[in-house]
Amino acid sequence: MTLEDLAAELRRFAAERDWERFHTPKNLAVSLAVEVGELLEHVQWGSDEEIAAAVGTPEGRAALSEELADVFIYLVRLADVVGVDLLDAASAKIAANADRYPADEVRGSAVKRSH
Amino acid sequence: MTLEDLAAELRRFAAERDWERFHTPKNLAVSLAVEVGELLEHVQWGSDEEIAAAVGTPEGRAALSEELADVFIYLVRLADVVGVDLLDAASAKIAANADRYPADEVRGSAVKRSH
Amino acid sequence: MTLEDLAAELRRFAAERDWERFHTPKNLAVSLAVEVGELLEHVQWGSDEEIAAAVGTPEGRAALSEELADVFIYLVRLADVVGVDLLDAASAKIAANADRYPADEVRGSAVKRSH
Amino acid sequence: MTLEDLAAELRRFAAERDWERFHTPKNLAVSLAVEVGELLEHVQWGSDEEIAAAVGTPEGRAALSEELADVFIYLVRLADVVGVDLLDAASAKIAANADRYPADEVRGSAVKRSH
Repeated sequence: MTLEDLAAELRRFAAERDWERFHTPKNLAVSLAVEVGELLEHVQWGSDEEIAAAVGTPEGRAALSEELADVFIYLVRLADVVGVDLLDAASAKIAANADRYPADEVRGSAVKRSH
Repeated sequence: MTLEDLAAELRRFAAERDWERFHTPKNLAVSLAVEVGELLEHVQWGSDEEIAAAVGTPEGRAALSEELADVFIYLVRLADVVGVDLLDAASAKIAANADRYPADEVRGSAVKRSH
Repeated sequence: MTLEDLAAELRRFAAERDWERFHTPKNLAVSLAVEVGELLEHVQWGSDEEIAAAVGTPEGRAALSEELADVFIYLVRLADVVGVDLLDAASAKIAANADRYPADEVRGSAVKRSH
Repeated sequence: MTLEDLAAELRRFAAERDWERFHTPKNLAVSLAVEVGELLEHVQWGSDEEIAAAVGTPEGRAALSEELADVFIYLVRLADVVGVDLLDAASAKIAANADRYPADEVRGSAVKRSH
């Protein structure tokens, strides 16, 4: 399955249930936040070591996998509804980030890496 | 570009900057929440009509596209770090959701659609 | 009960359970995001009218009240841990916002109201 | 200033700017998530030690204080709009949590502490 196949499948899933009218950009963005909240529950209290250990178990990985799937599904659905190609958008952003954070200048530095 | 290519490119991007040690599941999940927060700014106050109008302009779409890219990048990076295949995970979740929400029973209903 | 009483009660609650070491600013900020995610579930799909109707029922209000309490508890605990007085901080912010958004200039406008 | 004074001040602030129609529960809950996202930026990459050091500086504390104020302002405004008394709701929740997590049984344990 490709990303496009997934978007098409989610489009069909919504159409079959007459859910398209609920799938506004606002509602889908809120849904994305709800699912990221559920994902955060898995890293809420543990140290990096404890989380790595949990992810290393089949149950831990399955639980995390399901949360990641939920986030992914809403993200792909939202991008499809607003007509954004996620892979293209990510490529453009990575190119911009490469200019912004030259490897030679930022190596190993934690200062404002994400903006 | 495929999803796998993107994951590989992000892996390289982090390695070149010695950022791997910052890319723990906990930090990446937090980053995902930060970016979803920025995405939510675009739907914070507008009605569905106003948001649709904004998304319909080149500037509005470009702005949203950039936020979606940020969310996507952290999601793909996080999934790669914990060893989850996003497309497989989404497929499994859609199959489970199809059982949980039979089209004939939930059509058009807004009650607990997402869980 | 005042806000200070609540902060003191939460301090005692954590101390009695030996949970202080889990209550780092990072973990508490993540917990705040988890609880806001649960709050968002209540406004995820409904229109403003449907949400107002739900909040108007005893069950709807009780459910929302519990989510608001969870957000509030983590916010007060986090502020206490980092030594911030929430009421003072809010007063300072409102004064700054009053300068930034003069009533005569922004009345009824939805453009960038929050920043 | 008390919590009630703050709620009244925010009510007046919105009324003077004709912003009440934007302050629906849905929009305010989204705003809360936006502000929590900005708060999370401050704990996104640092270790607990690095974050504690940052919070210990006047600039670090001031920055965090402003984010906490934003979260608090939207939370108090949302609670006011839906008619929930935050201190009462928090008291009720703490009593329920005390039953759920008896100090003798959960001391020092990180398993599902928050639910």
